[in-house]
Amino acid sequence: MTDGGAGGDTETGTVHLVGSGPGDPELLTIKAKRLLEDADVVLHDKLPGPEIIGLIPEEKREDVGKRAGGEWTPQEYTNRRLVELAHEGKDVVRLKGGDPTVFGRGGEELVHLAENEVPVEVVPGITSAVAGPEVAGIPVTHRDYTSSVSFVTGHEDPTKDESAIDWGALAATGGTIVVLMGVGKLPEYTQVLREEGLAGDTPVALIERATWPDQRVATGTLDTIVNVRDRVEIEPPAITVIGSVAATRENVLDFLVGAKDGDGGTENA
Amino acid sequence: MTDGGAGGDTETGTVHLVGSGPGDPELLTIKAKRLLEDADVVLHDKLPGPEIIGLIPEEKREDVGKRAGGEWTPQEYTNRRLVELAHEGKDVVRLKGGDPTVFGRGGEELVHLAENEVPVEVVPGITSAVAGPEVAGIPVTHRDYTSSVSFVTGHEDPTKDESAIDWGALAATGGTIVVLMGVGKLPEYTQVLREEGLAGDTPVALIERATWPDQRVATGTLDTIVNVRDRVEIEPPAITVIGSVAATRENVLDFLVGAKDGDGGTENA
Repeated sequence: MTDGGAGGDTETGTVHLVGSGPGDPELLTIKAKRLLEDADVVLHDKLPGPEIIGLIPEEKREDVGKRAGGEWTPQEYTNRRLVELAHEGKDVVRLKGGDPTVFGRGGEELVHLAENEVPVEVVPGITSAVAGPEVAGIPVTHRDYTSSVSFVTGHEDPTKDESAIDWGALAATGGTIVVLMGVGKLPEYTQVLREEGLAGDTPVALIERATWPDQRVATGTLDTIVNVRDRVEIEPPAITVIGSVAATRENVLDFLVGAKDGDGGTENA
Repeated sequence: MTDGGAGGDTETGTVHLVGSGPGDPELLTIKAKRLLEDADVVLHDKLPGPEIIGLIPEEKREDVGKRAGGEWTPQEYTNRRLVELAHEGKDVVRLKGGDPTVFGRGGEELVHLAENEVPVEVVPGITSAVAGPEVAGIPVTHRDYTSSVSFVTGHEDPTKDESAIDWGALAATGGTIVVLMGVGKLPEYTQVLREEGLAGDTPVALIERATWPDQRVATGTLDTIVNVRDRVEIEPPAITVIGSVAATRENVLDFLVGAKDGDGGTENA
């Protein structure tokens, strides 16, 4: 342990990068629950969802939400604040939606903390990339249909030259593609995937607010899903699942327990 | 609900397909713990690991491990047994290692149960594909290095023509590749990935028994990792992480809390 910067001989606290899971409080891990109870401070944004944030005593909460008050909290602020609190000797939970290292910049926070000689622990959470589809009746892998699954973010514009995502290579894998934060750019990347050779009748599902009480699911195909999205007004946060497995939902839905659905429509090609 | 087949008017029980997470009992979800406590019967194999299986009262356990007594329990037996128990009105937990739908045939069990009109619930678990790397200090995504991550199984022989995995397309994505059950065929798929254009100095990490008390980690590159595996005798179950992110471990290890390591060696190119 190193000494706290300003505090002199204060022992540096530990930062726990904790995944909250997709939103259902029962999908917190036992470890996450314990750390939230024991922490001095919990830095969180909006992604864990209202039910889980509601479990944290208000006096422990610090909202570093990216859109608090309409403004974005820069990542640099969060990084600096985590180091500062650790130097004050605080036991800190940095609560991330889903899993801390599946997008969401947990990897950057991990590296930043280690560079600043702050003890850091990564506590896995359930990623909505897997949980969203499966609670909706869609296994992201299935021996009969796919032998791989790829996760990407939908934030980038796939029609830009500088897009870091190679949609053609993803299409060529033949595996399931799961797009996180994939509502806004849905028209662009479904178009690119068709141009790259995926069939227009490839099944697609959208899962909005996975495992939250107001979860909604909408299904269609690469050709129809943009219309479905517009008709039933699917909004962020939502996950897109592209591939044969997305059709599983209709085969299992009648016997699926706990598939909390609102008015998410279903439209097939 | 439908009537039980043999039992006449017995109400059909529910089958919960529950992910156990990677092995650390504290990485069970609150929901998984509750369902294990409430279940009449728990069908499990070896993958949840000894610590979690030890939490289940012995009188509730049914081992359908694929290698119980040196023999393989056919998937057909497990499928039939789940339906049979539900028809007896039992509340059944089918406990799967990791997440129930990330490989491991949970998707097939889901479809089989619905086809047989058995109420079925999917309860996500933490997949070792994400948790294994991250507790070892490796985020599977990182904005500076990768914008996608793909999961595949290493059971298939990648040099066979009928291999369902397109390693060339996976290499072309430029993203992180995580291979589950990837120890045995490591020489074959690292060779194929180099032939498909991945640089020989691409960082690679092996995580054996992720989050178990005897977890081990070994690191190297596409060129060196087979030698590392042989030297430190990495054995199944283990996960392979291929991509720039695998090098993160060495940058954070000094400050990483809870990285339980045995004698896993490190060898760089």
